[in-house]
Formats: sequence, C-alpha cells, structure tokens
Amino acid sequence: MALNDLAPVARNEDGIALALGILKQRFGDRFQTGAALRAQHAHTTTYIPAQLPDGVLFAQDADEVQAAVEVCAAHRVPIIPFGTGSSLEGHVNAPGGGISIDLSQMNRIVAVHAEDLDCVVEPGVTRSQLNTHLRDTGLFFPIDPGADASLGGMAATRASGTNAVRYGTMRDNVISLEAVMPNGRKIVTAKRARKSSAGYDLTRLMIGSEGTLGIITQLTLRLAGQPAAITGGVCPFPTLEAAVNAVILTIQIGLPVARIELVNQLQMRSMIDYAGLDLPESPCLFVEFHGTEAGVAEQAETFAEIAGELEGGPFIWSARAEDRSRLWKARHDAYWAALTLRPGAKGISTDVCVPISELADCIVETEADIAENGLIAPIVGHAGDGNFHVLVLLDDTDPAEIAAAEAFIERLNLRALAVGGTCTGEHGIGQGKMAFLEMELGGAVDVMRSIKTALDPDNIMNPGKVLRV
Amino acid sequence: MALNDLAPVARNEDGIALALGILKQRFGDRFQTGAALRAQHAHTTTYIPAQLPDGVLFAQDADEVQAAVEVCAAHRVPIIPFGTGSSLEGHVNAPGGGISIDLSQMNRIVAVHAEDLDCVVEPGVTRSQLNTHLRDTGLFFPIDPGADASLGGMAATRASGTNAVRYGTMRDNVISLEAVMPNGRKIVTAKRARKSSAGYDLTRLMIGSEGTLGIITQLTLRLAGQPAAITGGVCPFPTLEAAVNAVILTIQIGLPVARIELVNQLQMRSMIDYAGLDLPESPCLFVEFHGTEAGVAEQAETFAEIAGELEGGPFIWSARAEDRSRLWKARHDAYWAALTLRPGAKGISTDVCVPISELADCIVETEADIAENGLIAPIVGHAGDGNFHVLVLLDDTDPAEIAAAEAFIERLNLRALAVGGTCTGEHGIGQGKMAFLEMELGGAVDVMRSIKTALDPDNIMNPGKVLRV
Repeated sequence: MALNDLAPVARNEDGIALALGILKQRFGDRFQTGAALRAQHAHTTTYIPAQLPDGVLFAQDADEVQAAVEVCAAHRVPIIPFGTGSSLEGHVNAPGGGISIDLSQMNRIVAVHAEDLDCVVEPGVTRSQLNTHLRDTGLFFPIDPGADASLGGMAATRASGTNAVRYGTMRDNVISLEAVMPNGRKIVTAKRARKSSAGYDLTRLMIGSEGTLGIITQLTLRLAGQPAAITGGVCPFPTLEAAVNAVILTIQIGLPVARIELVNQLQMRSMIDYAGLDLPESPCLFVEFHGTEAGVAEQAETFAEIAGELEGGPFIWSARAEDRSRLWKARHDAYWAALTLRPGAKGISTDVCVPISELADCIVETEADIAENGLIAPIVGHAGDGNFHVLVLLDDTDPAEIAAAEAFIERLNLRALAVGGTCTGEHGIGQGKMAFLEMELGGAVDVMRSIKTALDPDNIMNPGKVLRV
Repeated sequence: MALNDLAPVARNEDGIALALGILKQRFGDRFQTGAALRAQHAHTTTYIPAQLPDGVLFAQDADEVQAAVEVCAAHRVPIIPFGTGSSLEGHVNAPGGGISIDLSQMNRIVAVHAEDLDCVVEPGVTRSQLNTHLRDTGLFFPIDPGADASLGGMAATRASGTNAVRYGTMRDNVISLEAVMPNGRKIVTAKRARKSSAGYDLTRLMIGSEGTLGIITQLTLRLAGQPAAITGGVCPFPTLEAAVNAVILTIQIGLPVARIELVNQLQMRSMIDYAGLDLPESPCLFVEFHGTEAGVAEQAETFAEIAGELEGGPFIWSARAEDRSRLWKARHDAYWAALTLRPGAKGISTDVCVPISELADCIVETEADIAENGLIAPIVGHAGDGNFHVLVLLDDTDPAEIAAAEAFIERLNLRALAVGGTCTGEHGIGQGKMAFLEMELGGAVDVMRSIKTALDPDNIMNPGKVLRV
C-alpha cells in the first residue's frame, strides 16, 4: 500500500530550469547540481525509491532561505528542506524534482538564556551539538530520537524518543519558531514567554508539518535542568504482558520515570550477543529515573517492587554512570544488534503508537504475525507512551520480500488504528504513510488540506508528503 | 485601545430572522430568545459593553450542534459557543448578533480509561465535576484556572492556572478533540494514543482558537496520578525581586514544584485582613509540592534553603491537608480579598506573561505605574511561568476611570511585549486584545487570518474575536 500510494508530483520543467539558473547566479558554489550530491539529499532510509532534487542549496541564514523560497515561489518550483537526512518515511525525496535546501550550515547557537531555561538555535544545530554546548550550564535539551538529528528536522517531524515519557516530545519543548512561509514571508510564531494564549498555535501547527507549510529557520527551545542524580537498570520479565503491565502500573502511580524502554525477546537475543549483556533471553524493560539522590533511589526501589509483583526481576539498577552508560549503549545500539540477526539484510524501521492498555495485545499479535509470515523483525518500544518500532530485516533487492514487508506494515497499522492508536508515534507521515493518515483521521485530513492549500496554493513546499492536494 | 479597537461585525438581519425561525421549530423550548437569557449569555466580565446574541440554543449532543451549525452556515449567521461564561476578554459577546450555543447540558463523562490515564468528556463538563467523578480512581485532571470553568471552554481559550508550572496548560493535557467545523462537518483531530506524529496538529490548532474555527463537542484528556503526598506553605520575602529570584532558582535546579504563586504587597494586605492570615505585609510565595512522602518533605526543605539564601522566610510548610487548604483558600479568594481594597468597585482582571528573568522588573515597573497613576490594582502571579494578573479596581460607570484603566492596560501590554513577553498568558485575545496580538506577532497574524478564512470563509464562528478578517 505504502509504495503504490506515493503521491505523484508533476515536474514543472520550465520553472525548474529558470530557478536553477537564478539560484546558481545568486549563490555560486553553494548551489550544487552534481548527481552524487543530489542523490545524497534524496536517500530515504526506506524501500521507497530515491527521487532526486534538481539542485541543492546550502543556505547560510534565514535571508538566504527567504531569497531561495521567493525564487521557487515565483517559478512554482518544489522546495525540500533538508537537515541531516535521518527521517524515516521518505521525507527528503523529491517526487517532482525541485530544490533541496540544506540547512546544515545554519548551525549557530544564537543565545542561551539560562535563567529562563531556554535557548535560541538555528535549524541545522544537532541535538548533540546543543547538549555539548550546554554542558556547563546545568541545563540540557531532553529530546533524543536516537539519531543525531538536526533540531529543525526534529521539530518538522515532531520527533520524540526514549525520554518523551518524562520530558514530552518536540511538541512540548519548542517555545517559538521563525519560519519562511511558502509566499516567502518570514514569520515568528510566538514570543519567548513560557506560555501564551495569544492567537492560534502556529508553533504547534508547524511542528510535525514535515516542511509542507514552510521552512523553519530558527527555534526557541525549552531546556531542562540536568538531574542531580540518575538511577537506571534493566529488568527482565517472564512475558511481554508482564513487562507492559509493569509500565502501566509505573505510570499510573505517578512514578516520574525518565525512560522506560521495552525490548522484546528477539531483540534481546541480538543485544545479548552484540553487547555481551548478562541477561536472560526474555522481554526486558530498560528503566531510568532522574531526580535527587534520595528521590531516584526511592523510585528505583518502588519500580523493583512493581516488577516483583508481576513476577519480573531481578531489577538490577545502579546510580553509577559507567554501569548505566553500558546498558544504554546496548539499547542505543539495538539497530546494529538487530542487523546481526540477518547479516546483509537492510533494516526498515516502522512505528505505531497505541493506548498503553492495548500495547501488550498489539505487540503479541504483531509477534504472531511476524512468525506466521516468516519475517525477521525485532521490536523495541517507548513503552511509557505506547509507542513501538518494528525493524523488518529484508533483502531490498527482492520484490517479493518488499511486498511481504509492505503487507505486514499495512496489517500493523490497521491493528494499531483498530484499538485507538495512530499510524505513527514519532516517525511522521512522509511519503510512506499518507494512506494510513487518511484511514486514521478521515475528515480531519480535509481540514489539513484546506490549511495546506490556503498557505501554499501552488503546492511548492515539500510536495507529495503528508497530504494529497 | 482595547475598547476603541473592537472589531465591528455587520448584522445579517435576514439570515438571523430565518435561522431563528428554523431553530425554534427544530429545538422548541431548548431554543430561547428572551432578553434576560440572552443578556446572561453576553456578560463579559470586562468593561466591554454587552452585545447580546439573538437566541440561545441549549444543545444536548454533537448532532444537535452540527444541525445548528448547518442552519447558521446556510444563512451566514454568527455562532458563539458558550460554556460557563467565565472567560475574561469578551469571548461570549455577540457583536453581530447570532446564536449562542450553550453547551452546559453536554456534560456527560463518556469514559474513564484509568489504565491509559485518560478520559473522554463532553465540553460542558466542568473541571470540578470531572475531579469529583475521578475521586476514587487515584487520578485527577490537573488544570485549575480558578473559575469552575467548562472543559470545552478551557480548551477553547488554552486555559492554565496555578499548577501549570508542573502539569502544563490545556495545550499539554488534551489528547484529542471532536469538533464541528464551520461547514457543519464533524471531525476528530487525533486518536487516543498518548503521542502521535500523524499530520498537522489540529488538536493544538483548535486549542486557543476561542471558538473562531469550530465548536468543540468532545475532549479526550490526559489525567495525572493523584500525588501520594503533598506539602505546601507560604514564604514571605523582603522584596519582590527576592521572591522572583527564589522562583528562578527553584525552576533552574529542577525542583518539581507543583504551584509557586507570587502575591504582591498590596494583594497580601487585602488577604491578611480578609482571610485572617498571620503573615507580614510583604511579597509572598505560596508553594506546593506533589510526590512521595519523602520526596515532598525533601523538596520543601530545599525550597526553604533557597528562600533563606535570598533573605526570605521563614517558609512555614505543612503536609497536613487542613493547613494547606486554609492557605490555598486564601490564595483562591484573592479576588474577593482584593475587592475589599475599594468597596463597591468592579475588578477587571488582565494578564501578561514574560520570560521569568524579566518578571521582577516587569512587576516592579508595573507597581510604579499603578502608584503614579493613582490606581488601586493588586497583583498575583503564576510566577513559575512568568505569568501575572493585575486586578484593576474601578468604578465602571466613570468613563475617566475606564480610560485610565485602558491606558494602564496598554502600557502593561507594551511593557510585556518589549521584553519578549506575550499580551496574554492564559486569558486569551477575545475582543479585548486584538490590537495587542497584531503588535505581538505581526505577519504571523496574517497566517492565522489565512487559516481562519480557509476554514470559515463566511466568518460565522465567533466573529469579532481574536482576528480581524
């Protein structure tokens, strides 16, 4: 379904030719049209075929973005914003050609307001760059989607990751955005106050719009205080249901867990070998608490009790950074560990998110589906949010395997939708999930379409993504 | 400025006459046109003159709302959604007449999903009704804007209140909305999963749109676990700056304070008399912590240390519910206490929100402005968010006093905007702050206008509020 449903975008050959000439003249060597560079900007991390832009502009500031958008708007040429290219649903593909605007050189940290717990950054700043910069301030930016993504891209895709259960997603951690809109106008969506009820929430409208409504050129982000103490550890459970029930209880009693990651049996098998973990081959929760020294110890003990009540455990936890780093490195390397389950295969990552009361059933049914269809596909989940990922290991040169993976992903999405879930908790829609979005929200997609058409009547902003217009 | 800038809305006499007839026929006694009832639905809690709707419909379910919207859309008749009428910027006024849709009878609690920490409610459910219903579940809905507002109205105005510093605002605590759009179509903005990156964030677009984009007919809300233990107390400070610095330090070290309310000297004077508080007449912080028994005691001690470093204190705190209730009753009764400062006067509440590093200066300058202009206007603030309220006590039959209050409010808003603040942290724009919204966000307001025009081309949804179209 995903593949067949790619939205075609007609090429505007004349407009593209004109824009290429103007941009070359205006930007010289920072505007490139070589095939290798164009291919690099259209890699999709999926099995969706690459669709190359016609040129790549390395923008250095918001005025340049604005100038480029004005050229593209005048000639009705598609614009595809590019951060680090780590998005997962074909977001940077160029189905109608056009100009990729690479924002990686817009990587200045403009201001850190430590007293206000906020900072102002350009969109090409990556989360690790920001956190390195913040190291001595006692503050950090908590959103960690796994990849060292750009903050502009993370906002555009409404990214989240392992500690969203405690700190929220990009939705919750952006105070304001500056963006260049499809008509070339630059707007600021909000002031720097921590909250506001002044008008429509354009900040949240841009977050998750995947570059289809405008290009983010600056972000004001909320920062969190670095916790005084951290405890963390791994807890095995006899069954996946028991592990999920431990998550539900943890959340329900209000234990302020910072991370609570579910790893299924197959994924654990790969990680035990890959990272040399001394753990049983059974579903596990990787858990972390942030707070005061006394607080995090109390929280870890409370979690151990919960796990014990559900016949899980032992919960081996530690306040020592070395011990925790080793465990979280194993969790972060889950992708590489999983690849060892089928050497030479490509890993295609997909995600859904369901109410947590439905999480155990949804994963158990998905495991059965995987087994019945002979797939190799381990599962990890941000269980506190009901969000899980399946990594399908396949030979992406084999059409039959691609078809089987697509059919599986379709069943997975329908299963999530059937229990009140969403087709994506954090990867976004891109090219891959447009049909599922329609199934999920129906008439609401028409409202999105009205907004898209009002703001971008010529459909030049990342066309062929999120919505058919 | 506020008064002179009310956006006029032309009356569509023929359309209104037709709609009145159709609605009377369709809804019988649940559609009322008596003057008293219409006046009740246009009270503004401001000095903006009341502008009455032509009829009031007491809707009983979403289908009825949809039917009424279809009638009004067909005849281009304004629709003004009404919850409890506790909004503060003329939101329920009917400048072009039309139909007030009273949602108070849509007050069913549809479902409580305790395992998922969410619930589904109709828009007329009030926050105290919901929390009474939840009492035995171990859960609660944390947003408390002061008034016992309806949850639909709270979403529509992006309400927050005393514990937003810990639990966020309505923006953060709504998972999904059902809404009837201006064309009469009913949409659902999201599924019930705790997070999603599926398409544009229509949930957040509707939150804070003040009824100008559609009528909320159902809400899925996030619930929080009732804290196992609570500590709270009051701490006096020698100066307002010292109190604000204590707030900044508290937030910066990551102390998870649940409430941290600033009360200025004049407001304290009124409260000491009104509630019989044994406290000095100096700026105070009312503080509360939610957590485990050991955690909240530790947090209160840490706060006492912070206060001491800033020459504040003593911080008298207690874990006993009776002691805390007495204090918070005093804080909640601040409005009534303030009225005693000028018996017979009307209290007009306004709010702004600034980065917390600017809060002390902004309040000190505002106090000086109040003194220079001979106003009586105490101040309370949700200091952890940088949000504060000024209650101007005036004789609202005296045009000179109204003009002085308006001029003061204009200076207050400009002062907040000048330091990166917003013209409203939680009251919204309504009729009163449209000019300030334009000053605050400039070109972004044009984007809001494009969205409004795309979704409501005939401007029937709460016209004359938020935006000029």
